[in-house]
Amino acid sequence: MAMHNYSKHVSPARKHRVGLLGYTGYSGAELAGLLERHPAVTVFLLNHRKADNSSREDRPVPCGGRAQSDPRQAGTGPLRGEEELRKEGTGQQAYKLPCLPWSPAAVSENELEFVFTATPPEVSMEVVPEVLVRGARAIDLSGAFRLSSAEQYRRWYGSEHLRPDLLGEAVYGLPELSRESIRTACLVANPGCYPTAAICALWPLLEQDWIDRTAGIVCDSKSGVSGAGKTPSPKTHFVAVSGNFSAYAVLNHRHVPEMLNCLGLEESEFSFTAQLLPIKRGILAAHYLRLKRRSTLEEVLELYRAAYQGARFIRLYPPGSHPQLRLVNGTNFCDIHCSVGSDGKRLVVISCIDNLVKGAAGQAVQNLNVMLGIDETTGLL
Amino acid sequence: MAMHNYSKHVSPARKHRVGLLGYTGYSGAELAGLLERHPAVTVFLLNHRKADNSSREDRPVPCGGRAQSDPRQAGTGPLRGEEELRKEGTGQQAYKLPCLPWSPAAVSENELEFVFTATPPEVSMEVVPEVLVRGARAIDLSGAFRLSSAEQYRRWYGSEHLRPDLLGEAVYGLPELSRESIRTACLVANPGCYPTAAICALWPLLEQDWIDRTAGIVCDSKSGVSGAGKTPSPKTHFVAVSGNFSAYAVLNHRHVPEMLNCLGLEESEFSFTAQLLPIKRGILAAHYLRLKRRSTLEEVLELYRAAYQGARFIRLYPPGSHPQLRLVNGTNFCDIHCSVGSDGKRLVVISCIDNLVKGAAGQAVQNLNVMLGIDETTGLL
Amino acid sequence: MAMHNYSKHVSPARKHRVGLLGYTGYSGAELAGLLERHPAVTVFLLNHRKADNSSREDRPVPCGGRAQSDPRQAGTGPLRGEEELRKEGTGQQAYKLPCLPWSPAAVSENELEFVFTATPPEVSMEVVPEVLVRGARAIDLSGAFRLSSAEQYRRWYGSEHLRPDLLGEAVYGLPELSRESIRTACLVANPGCYPTAAICALWPLLEQDWIDRTAGIVCDSKSGVSGAGKTPSPKTHFVAVSGNFSAYAVLNHRHVPEMLNCLGLEESEFSFTAQLLPIKRGILAAHYLRLKRRSTLEEVLELYRAAYQGARFIRLYPPGSHPQLRLVNGTNFCDIHCSVGSDGKRLVVISCIDNLVKGAAGQAVQNLNVMLGIDETTGLL
Amino acid sequence: MAMHNYSKHVSPARKHRVGLLGYTGYSGAELAGLLERHPAVTVFLLNHRKADNSSREDRPVPCGGRAQSDPRQAGTGPLRGEEELRKEGTGQQAYKLPCLPWSPAAVSENELEFVFTATPPEVSMEVVPEVLVRGARAIDLSGAFRLSSAEQYRRWYGSEHLRPDLLGEAVYGLPELSRESIRTACLVANPGCYPTAAICALWPLLEQDWIDRTAGIVCDSKSGVSGAGKTPSPKTHFVAVSGNFSAYAVLNHRHVPEMLNCLGLEESEFSFTAQLLPIKRGILAAHYLRLKRRSTLEEVLELYRAAYQGARFIRLYPPGSHPQLRLVNGTNFCDIHCSVGSDGKRLVVISCIDNLVKGAAGQAVQNLNVMLGIDETTGLL
Repeated sequence: MAMHNYSKHVSPARKHRVGLLGYTGYSGAELAGLLERHPAVTVFLLNHRKADNSSREDRPVPCGGRAQSDPRQAGTGPLRGEEELRKEGTGQQAYKLPCLPWSPAAVSENELEFVFTATPPEVSMEVVPEVLVRGARAIDLSGAFRLSSAEQYRRWYGSEHLRPDLLGEAVYGLPELSRESIRTACLVANPGCYPTAAICALWPLLEQDWIDRTAGIVCDSKSGVSGAGKTPSPKTHFVAVSGNFSAYAVLNHRHVPEMLNCLGLEESEFSFTAQLLPIKRGILAAHYLRLKRRSTLEEVLELYRAAYQGARFIRLYPPGSHPQLRLVNGTNFCDIHCSVGSDGKRLVVISCIDNLVKGAAGQAVQNLNVMLGIDETTGLL
Repeated sequence: MAMHNYSKHVSPARKHRVGLLGYTGYSGAELAGLLERHPAVTVFLLNHRKADNSSREDRPVPCGGRAQSDPRQAGTGPLRGEEELRKEGTGQQAYKLPCLPWSPAAVSENELEFVFTATPPEVSMEVVPEVLVRGARAIDLSGAFRLSSAEQYRRWYGSEHLRPDLLGEAVYGLPELSRESIRTACLVANPGCYPTAAICALWPLLEQDWIDRTAGIVCDSKSGVSGAGKTPSPKTHFVAVSGNFSAYAVLNHRHVPEMLNCLGLEESEFSFTAQLLPIKRGILAAHYLRLKRRSTLEEVLELYRAAYQGARFIRLYPPGSHPQLRLVNGTNFCDIHCSVGSDGKRLVVISCIDNLVKGAAGQAVQNLNVMLGIDETTGLL
Repeated sequence: MAMHNYSKHVSPARKHRVGLLGYTGYSGAELAGLLERHPAVTVFLLNHRKADNSSREDRPVPCGGRAQSDPRQAGTGPLRGEEELRKEGTGQQAYKLPCLPWSPAAVSENELEFVFTATPPEVSMEVVPEVLVRGARAIDLSGAFRLSSAEQYRRWYGSEHLRPDLLGEAVYGLPELSRESIRTACLVANPGCYPTAAICALWPLLEQDWIDRTAGIVCDSKSGVSGAGKTPSPKTHFVAVSGNFSAYAVLNHRHVPEMLNCLGLEESEFSFTAQLLPIKRGILAAHYLRLKRRSTLEEVLELYRAAYQGARFIRLYPPGSHPQLRLVNGTNFCDIHCSVGSDGKRLVVISCIDNLVKGAAGQAVQNLNVMLGIDETTGLL
Repeated sequence: MAMHNYSKHVSPARKHRVGLLGYTGYSGAELAGLLERHPAVTVFLLNHRKADNSSREDRPVPCGGRAQSDPRQAGTGPLRGEEELRKEGTGQQAYKLPCLPWSPAAVSENELEFVFTATPPEVSMEVVPEVLVRGARAIDLSGAFRLSSAEQYRRWYGSEHLRPDLLGEAVYGLPELSRESIRTACLVANPGCYPTAAICALWPLLEQDWIDRTAGIVCDSKSGVSGAGKTPSPKTHFVAVSGNFSAYAVLNHRHVPEMLNCLGLEESEFSFTAQLLPIKRGILAAHYLRLKRRSTLEEVLELYRAAYQGARFIRLYPPGSHPQLRLVNGTNFCDIHCSVGSDGKRLVVISCIDNLVKGAAGQAVQNLNVMLGIDETTGLL
């Protein structure tokens, strides 16, 4: 009968101490909310000058924020309520989590086992090595450690990588594909939001070599505005977005190399477009490809069922249904919908995720769970 | 350390059996989601021909639905996922809750202690007496039992009340005002959404007689579209609502008599306007009134703090902050913001609630908790 | 100092008498607004029992309606204003256009030269032959006369075509492709909204045989909600659409055969997906294809410039820009954006239109202008 | 068969030369669009370093921009289209209007008769005196010259007024109230958006002394996001606004003194709240007041009809209708809706305007027309 009774599984003695650097952006705030409720960890927010201290960044409850992650936040009558609302109003943290100034020494002094970095790549490149040196394991949500070489990083991020030596050590943290490597990794590079949606959709087909790669693979992806980050700009102004829909970074989005690396594709085989939806969160990506041999929808679904056997966060749409973001937003699920053309060769695979959960903070927690060797869904269902 | 570990407080032997009639509208679906996670109850959905069986009504996850109430719904890999998404697609229930056909006998046969009715008033008038006769307690979310007389019902609802004898027995279920009567009530009339926002804002001032009633009291209220119900109509078509804002039922909304009754006001003292916001959920109501004697903002806030001492779901905005719906949506809170004019006499009180939670389903659960004599926040935080 | 007094320029003798059947749907209302301001025509609304008389359909100003097409509608002080707003409120027509009951005889009695039918296909199949028999020319906005055979119609529309003999006579009304045939046509089948966006994007490449068709062509299209029509349904309810994004009719939308016919493609060469944007109007379609030989972006743009030489409603995005719906909504333009992959073979062509203007009513007026032999932009700029 | 060729009707000798300083904000861009189509003027954009030159401000087509004001903008095939879209993309002006650098001398050198300033008040205070000195008439859209004294300006705008001597000369430009003074004014202070909605709603009642002022007057006003200006900020970020609704500046908005001055009210008699709607444009303001003597709705409407006899931009809602923004957006109308309580004393007056048209640019053009002595609706219908 017990509900939400995670205490059964995690004895007090086994509470793990984790730090979170960068808790004011959309992903970081989402992550703070998830970690606050996670039964196996004790969380410390780490205040980083560059990442958190600017006046307009220090707001930890942004995107529907905790109300979205946890609609049932605690209040204890007007006195406490005033305090909570005051913090909201002034931009101070509304979490009950302890907050420490970041310094490399803070890792060892506070006996942190894990440090999450939801920071820009240039900050992550500086901080993550310090974390590792002090013996903690790192889960980085930026793009700093997702690529395979300094050359690739230079081309797509337009600057030099500070620690190319760590690129080989980092494990790309998509648990559905690489649970075993993640389990023992010291540094996990949490995937980008677009790559998560694309890789979950395409990997089973590529792994079984069902795709006629000579025809090319298309990924037409659409994201909510939180994917563009919290810094105000003309492009994220309400008046510019509302009632509008636009494409950007056609064929040259910096998330492309992650997808190519992970899926083993050549750039010439893969066409990717990112588009901005007038909604707050969610990614729906449509993938178009040609099958090597004629197949039925049932055969395709069976392939996915086999590939994702036991994957708790993958859900397949049944025939006749219509994929939509509404059913994944606020969850860590990746929903997958398949359609086969009348010729049995054309296949459209549509995947849906919440860009801030499965596309960022939720997946980071899922990676933590894998690294801890506990139930992958802990704190996520 | 235990989290969400309600099992500590509620031993299995004390699980209460409750029924829910009308689980397909917005409020009913929200209520089903809340009850499903409530640690002290076992829930049975009751299928009513009029309320649930129409083809387009039988969809229990409407308004962001469970994803909104509980973003972390369970999935167990593709097989179970397919089943879940199939139900979403076909409009069948996605709950794991048992579902029974409604009949008066079902109450006793299933030993239901409580029955929630999230049904139109004409259905509630028929069903609630049957529930009571069989010894269960009823919490009705419709307007059927909120008014004080058959005459009043006739004027505002435009039809005859079928059971005027029960109007005297029903307790108006606003726990912040009438905990004691609710505790022992057999029939609780769950307040309307607009009245909940207005009464929470005005009651402390009226109870302490601070208001100059000769000047009149204004309530300018704005609601999200879920307040208009789930039945598709030209007025709720996306194209009609998006980018628009409109007023309706100016001075003659059927929620007015509830407010007058509960606050002890004359109709001529109270001006109420309902308006439709182009958002899914949330009510923000602005109340304008004149104080009998000059007061400072601090004095006003002190009055509210005293009135709501111990009220876990009331939060006061501190001076200098800006009230907004974002902070209450998805929660059972009623947030209150006060502003005093430079003359010390004009007072503006703004209250914010989620119309489907504190304005409907959450308040119904809060009432259940009061009736059970358990912590009022059980299943709501 | 008369304003908008186009009648001065177009002598009465040259005013053409046109009828409009079906003025209450989104496309029909948009068309009524455009025709009301068109300097070369005198318009008569034709009231059809099936198409216009249902209580909830008889509203001629729906989708921002005239306010969108013509924000500067006339008012003459409070008295006239009351009349205007009364009509809005009751759902009666707000146009100053004369309104006649439809009957075949009405065509000859009123000496109509042209009749527009913005009606469902089953109504168009009944009405258009009557129009032609009486010597008027018809511009039909439904799908009734767009396909090439009764077999094709049966497959995609799921019912029998009533006048297969007219399918051969109808001219597919995309002026950028077939000005000459339209000029002399008696029956113009106004293209669907999705096909307009796709054909404008793909036609120049196919006509010059630049596409490697063995790789297949993808069209991933997204439309605003007005494309789903005005009849309220669970799918167009504000609560279902707001904050959501969904795909429907993947690979089997009924607009597919129009595109195949017009572009000369096989079904197996073309993958089309329709998706619903949470906005009122606009279509953005992304097309993915492989070029036969390596090309630069400039070469591709030059191809389009040549193909659309003199086409006043086609605009090309320059290199480095981002396509968006905002710039076409409310206009008859089709904006086209091209991106070439680093391999010089992958090409992404994005086209944007307003589904109710270039995708329906505006294109119908453009066709009228071609049929009249006057400037194609008359009444549209 | 020339179209939009107003120059034919207005002989060159009668074309008036006008300048526009500040064409990149929402109001300025709207005004540029209106003036471009105005038949009686030749327009020159005046480039001001502070107001227009910042890299992110120099975009003249912002809020649906010209597409909103004039959906039928000209294109002449791909070549010209590329040019247009390039300008959109780079943020350069897309107008065909000549653009000159601002300098006081520019007024006389270009023989400008009128200069519009859609600039921040501090820029207007500097520029407007220069304009007047050179013999041109000024229409200022900022708050610089709307108040009656330097003291009032200091209190509400928080800085010193640079030219208090001009405050007495400026005419408050609400044509429905003060046509005669505007006609001969050298300096017109174009009213704020909130004041326009409030004054149009309340003035007839106050002018006829129908209101019991001892009860106070409430104005609860709601505005679209364009009212908050174009500069990106956390408050106008799409993620912060979408799905949200908030109040700000309760009882202390800087537009309050304009309303008090113009209506002859004491601050203690008037309660004003500004609220932010999740839409792009439009203001709906609800006014609550008590009548001195019992009246019927018809009597109230008759009062408005008499007060606004001949006012082409005021429309009254008839009994039984519902006020909404959709019907005014994109127009210069102010729509007014009245409801009388069952006691005949409580009155609710709801006014609707487009904040960028009747609330800013449209009213500025209306003022120009009055100053020119031509039909008040020229260029606005």
